[in-house]
Amino acid sequence: MASIKPSVPKGTRDFSPAEMAKRNFIFDTIKGVFRKYGYQQIETPTMENLSTLTGKYGDEGDKLIFKIIDSGDYTSKLIKDLIKSVNSTRIDEDFIELFKSIAAELAVSFLNMDDTVFEGRIKQIKSNLFMNFHSDILLAEIKKQEFVESIKEAFVKYLFSRNDSLKKNNVKNRLEHYRSIKNTQYKEDTVKTDFIRAVNSYYRLRTVIKFEKFINKQLSPASITSSISEKALRYDLTVPFARYVVQHQNEITFPFKRFQVQPVWRADRPQKGRYREFYQCDADVVGSASLLNEAEFVMIYDEALSLLGLQDFTIKINNRKILSGIAQVIDKYDSIVDLTVAIDKLDKIGLDGVIRELLERGFTDADIDKLKPVILLEGSNEEKLRKLREALKTSEIGLQGCEELETVFNYLKYTPLKKAVLELDITLARGLNYYTGAIFEVKTNEVAMGSIGGGGRYDDLTGMFGLKGLTGAGISFGADRIYDVLEELNLFPASAEQSTQVLIIAFDTQAEIYALPLLQKLRDSNVSAELYPAGAKVKKQMDYANNKQISYAVLIGSDEMQSGLLAFKNMESGVQEKLSAEDILARLTD
Amino acid sequence: MASIKPSVPKGTRDFSPAEMAKRNFIFDTIKGVFRKYGYQQIETPTMENLSTLTGKYGDEGDKLIFKIIDSGDYTSKLIKDLIKSVNSTRIDEDFIELFKSIAAELAVSFLNMDDTVFEGRIKQIKSNLFMNFHSDILLAEIKKQEFVESIKEAFVKYLFSRNDSLKKNNVKNRLEHYRSIKNTQYKEDTVKTDFIRAVNSYYRLRTVIKFEKFINKQLSPASITSSISEKALRYDLTVPFARYVVQHQNEITFPFKRFQVQPVWRADRPQKGRYREFYQCDADVVGSASLLNEAEFVMIYDEALSLLGLQDFTIKINNRKILSGIAQVIDKYDSIVDLTVAIDKLDKIGLDGVIRELLERGFTDADIDKLKPVILLEGSNEEKLRKLREALKTSEIGLQGCEELETVFNYLKYTPLKKAVLELDITLARGLNYYTGAIFEVKTNEVAMGSIGGGGRYDDLTGMFGLKGLTGAGISFGADRIYDVLEELNLFPASAEQSTQVLIIAFDTQAEIYALPLLQKLRDSNVSAELYPAGAKVKKQMDYANNKQISYAVLIGSDEMQSGLLAFKNMESGVQEKLSAEDILARLTD
Repeated sequence: MASIKPSVPKGTRDFSPAEMAKRNFIFDTIKGVFRKYGYQQIETPTMENLSTLTGKYGDEGDKLIFKIIDSGDYTSKLIKDLIKSVNSTRIDEDFIELFKSIAAELAVSFLNMDDTVFEGRIKQIKSNLFMNFHSDILLAEIKKQEFVESIKEAFVKYLFSRNDSLKKNNVKNRLEHYRSIKNTQYKEDTVKTDFIRAVNSYYRLRTVIKFEKFINKQLSPASITSSISEKALRYDLTVPFARYVVQHQNEITFPFKRFQVQPVWRADRPQKGRYREFYQCDADVVGSASLLNEAEFVMIYDEALSLLGLQDFTIKINNRKILSGIAQVIDKYDSIVDLTVAIDKLDKIGLDGVIRELLERGFTDADIDKLKPVILLEGSNEEKLRKLREALKTSEIGLQGCEELETVFNYLKYTPLKKAVLELDITLARGLNYYTGAIFEVKTNEVAMGSIGGGGRYDDLTGMFGLKGLTGAGISFGADRIYDVLEELNLFPASAEQSTQVLIIAFDTQAEIYALPLLQKLRDSNVSAELYPAGAKVKKQMDYANNKQISYAVLIGSDEMQSGLLAFKNMESGVQEKLSAEDILARLTD
Repeated sequence: MASIKPSVPKGTRDFSPAEMAKRNFIFDTIKGVFRKYGYQQIETPTMENLSTLTGKYGDEGDKLIFKIIDSGDYTSKLIKDLIKSVNSTRIDEDFIELFKSIAAELAVSFLNMDDTVFEGRIKQIKSNLFMNFHSDILLAEIKKQEFVESIKEAFVKYLFSRNDSLKKNNVKNRLEHYRSIKNTQYKEDTVKTDFIRAVNSYYRLRTVIKFEKFINKQLSPASITSSISEKALRYDLTVPFARYVVQHQNEITFPFKRFQVQPVWRADRPQKGRYREFYQCDADVVGSASLLNEAEFVMIYDEALSLLGLQDFTIKINNRKILSGIAQVIDKYDSIVDLTVAIDKLDKIGLDGVIRELLERGFTDADIDKLKPVILLEGSNEEKLRKLREALKTSEIGLQGCEELETVFNYLKYTPLKKAVLELDITLARGLNYYTGAIFEVKTNEVAMGSIGGGGRYDDLTGMFGLKGLTGAGISFGADRIYDVLEELNLFPASAEQSTQVLIIAFDTQAEIYALPLLQKLRDSNVSAELYPAGAKVKKQMDYANNKQISYAVLIGSDEMQSGLLAFKNMESGVQEKLSAEDILARLTD
C-alpha cells in the first residue's frame, strides 16, 4: 500500500465539481452559439493512426506527440526482432571459426615482422574503413585467397583500431614480450591464446556493434513507429477534422459545418497556463468560399463572449492576401515570412524595434519608408481600408485582400455586433503558412492575457489526405484562458453552479422514512434534492449543505412529523420558516 | 499525398452529427438524473501514472492497458540498458576461454567412454537443471576442481539438451564417426574442432539466452514502466476515482457523491459491440454505509432508463453476504468462488448444467440438495427473502445480507418505481471479489442484449492508495449498449436531433443581404438558423436543408423582397406559405 499520496502526470489536472460547473458553463455557452449558427457537433477518437498525425505539425510538433503502445504486442515483436538479429550472427560464427584458424599463423608471422614494415603495414590497413567488412558478401563472392587476405587485414585492423586492450603501444609491448620468450612452444601457445582472446573480443564486439546498429535503427524515435507504436494521441482538432472529412466524404453534406469540443495532448514542458492535456473548442466550415462565413465567425465570437459575460474585447481581423500585397509592393514577395514575423512584434517592441528587425532581416531603408505608413495604419476600419487600397494599388493580390475584408465589413453592417470591437490589424499574422485569406485573433481588454481565440481561412486543408480543392475557414476558443479571465473578473454566474438545490435533514430513521415521499415529489418536479442518511448529527448535515453550497435545507424531527410543518431554511440568507411539504414543493417549483 | 483513404485505429470510431445528437441525448439524460440525486460531476485526466493503474485489474487487465511514451526520452535509456547488458557478457568470455581449453580433453575422453557408462552419465547430467549454471558464482566461489567438474557437466548438458545440431542420436553417430577415424592426430583435431564449434554455439546461445532474459525482464509488459513508459490511458473510471479521493481527501466533503462520464481505453480484441475506446457513465458515493444509497441507485436506474424511453427492464439485486451465507451453510465457505461461478450460469445452462458444474467443482450431492431450493428461489422478493432467511438461519453473514436487502426494499416502498421491475436474483455475482454488499445488474426485456448497467457496494476502494476504511457503492450505465437498444427500438426522440431549425435560402446576393436582419433576429430569439451563402442553385440549397434535416426553409427572391412576403416552407410536411419576416419570427418562437 502506497503511503505516498497518489498524483496525476505532470501537465494534467483533475477537475473538482466546482471547476466542472464552471467549465461546463463555458463549453455549454460556446456550443449553444455554435449550434445556433448551424454548426453540428462531431467527435473523433482520442487516438489516431500515427501516420495521420506525423508530418503535419512541423519537426518540433512531431516531437511533442504522445505515442501509444499496446501492451504485449510490441514487446514480442521487438523481442523477435532482437533475437533474430542475434541469431543472424551465425554467419559471423562460421567466419570466426575460419578467422581463428588463421589467427595462429598471423600471430607467429607478426613476431617475425620487423618494426618499419610493421608500422607501414599498420598505416596501410588503418586507412581502410573497419566496418566496411561484411562477412556474408565475403563468403559468397570473394575467392578464398582474397578472403584470407581480407581476414588478415581485418584482423590487424581489429588489433589496432577497436580493441582497447591491444592499443598500438600495447601491441608493440606485447610483441616485444613475445620475442623475449625463449621457449618456442610456449611462445607460440602464448601468442595463439592471446590472439584467440582478441578474436573473441572482436566477435563480442561485432555482436555489440551489430546490436548497436540494430537498436539505433529499430528504436530511434523516427523509426520506432513501425516496431512499437502505430497510434498516438490527438495533437489538435484540425488534422483529425481533415481526416474525418476525407474519410467520410461520401456521407457528408457540403458545405460541412462542424464543431468539436474535445481534449488534445502535447508533450510540452508544462508551465503556468500551459498544460499537456487541454480542451480545444473549434468550429470549421469546409466546402464554401463565401465570406459570409468569415462574417459569421466574427458574430460567433461576439455572441459567445458576450454571453460569457465579457464586456470589453477586440476581434482583430487581417487578410493573408494583404500581407502578400505589402510584400509585393516593396518587391520582397519571397520575404513575406521575415516581413510578417517582424511587424507582428509591433505591440511588443514598438516601431523602432520592428524597423531594427526589418533591417536585420535584409529590408532596405527604401522598403521601410514604404512600410511605415502601412504598419502605422490608423483610423476606423473603413479609413484603414482606404489607405491600404492606395498603398497596395499596384498589387492585385493586395487589392483582393482588401476586397475580401470590405465584403466582411459590409455583411456586419446588417448584423451589428453586441459587444465586440472589430479591428483591422495588418500586423496580425499568426500561422502564416496555414491561412490563405482572413486571419482572426481575439483579445480581452479587461485582463492582461494572451489571445483567447483565433482562426482564419485556409485553402486545401484536406489536401494532406488526398482530397484537393476544398476551401475552408475556422475559429477556435481558448477555453482555459477564458476560464482564467472569467475567474479573475468573477464572472461565473451563480446559476452556473450545479449543486443540489435541497438537502433534507432527518433527525432519525423514522424521519428518514417520513422524508422519502417528499424527496420523490421534489425530484419528480425536477428539483435536485438529497436526503442525508439518518444517523449523523444535525450539525454534520448542515456542514454538508454548506460545503456543497446547497441552497435550501428541510429539517425533519419528531415535532415536524407530528405537526406536518417542516423547518425550511434558506441556506444563504439563514431565514428559516415552518412550511408544509406541499408549500415547500410550491416554493421550489415556482 | 496518400491515395489510400485515411482511417481510424481499429476499435475506435468517429461520431457524425446524427450520432452525436443521439449520444448527447443519452448522456444528458443520465447526467440530469445523477444531478437530481445530488451527484456532482468530476473529470480526471486521460492519462494516469502507470503505477496508479497497474495491478488493479488482474494480470489480464494489465495486458490490456494502453501505455504512452514521450517521444525521445525512452529510446536512449533503452539503448543504454541493452548495450550494458551486452557488455556484461564479458564474464562469459573469460569463462568460455576456460571452457574451451577443457573442450579438447572432454572430447577425447568421450571417445573412450563405453556406451552404457555414456548413457548413464547422460541420464545423470540431464537431471540437473541446465540453467542453474551461473558463471560469475562459479568464478568466485567454486574451487577449481569442482569448477572443472561443473564445466564438464554443463558442457555435456549443453550437448544433449540445447544444441539442435548435436542431438542425442547425432552425438552417438558422431562418436561412432570419431571412433572410426584411424589417424589419431586427425581424430583429435576433428574432435577438438567440433567441440570448439559446439562451445561457440553455446556461447552464442548463452548470449542469446542472456538477451532473451534481459529482454523479457526489461521489456516485459510488467516491467516496461521504468524503461519506457510511465503513463497510460484510463482503463476505467473507478481506479481514477479512488486515486482522486485519496489525492484530494482534504478538499472533499464526505459522503462524496460523484459522477463521471468519460471515455476509457482497453486494448481488447475488437469485435461487434466491443470497442477499444468507449464511454463509461459512473456514479459512486464514498464515505457512507447507509443503504439509502443502494435504494437511490435503484431509483436512478429506474428514472434514467424510463426517461430514455425504455418500458420493460429488470433491475436485479443480490448481496455478497447472502452468497457467503449460502456457502457457509453447506460448509463450503472457501469455495464461494466456485459456487457463484457455477450458479451464475443458471440462465445459460439450466439447473442440470449448474448441478453438473457444481459436482465437477467438488460439491457433494448433499451440498446440492441444500443448494437446490436456494438456486430455484421463486416468488415475490418478499417471499424469496423469507425462504432465504429460513435457509440461511445458521449463517450470521447470510442473515445480515438478507437484512440489508430488506432495508433497501423497505425504502423503495415509500418511493415506488416508475417502470423498473426489481428482482432479487441470488445467482447474480458479477465481480465477486470486488463487491462486499449489494450487487446490481440491469437488463432490458425488450431487446436481446447483455446487461445495460451494473454496480454494487464495496468496502475499502481507496485502500489501494493508502486510505483505508472508506466504504462506497456505485453504479454504471452501459452507454453503447443502451444506444443500440434505443436504436433498435427506434426510441430516440425527434427532439433529440440537434440540427438547425431554419435555413434561409437567398436567390442572389441582394437577397443574401436582405436576409441578414431576419437571420440575426431569429438567433436573438434563440432559433438556430443558417443563411445559405448566395450563389448556389436553389435546388442545391433545398437538398442541403433536407440532408441536414432542417425543419423550415425561408426562400427570398426579388418578388419576396419587393412584397415583403417571404416563402416559408415546412420541410417535413411540404406546406409552403407567404409570411412576413415578423410572422415567421412569431411562428418559430411560440
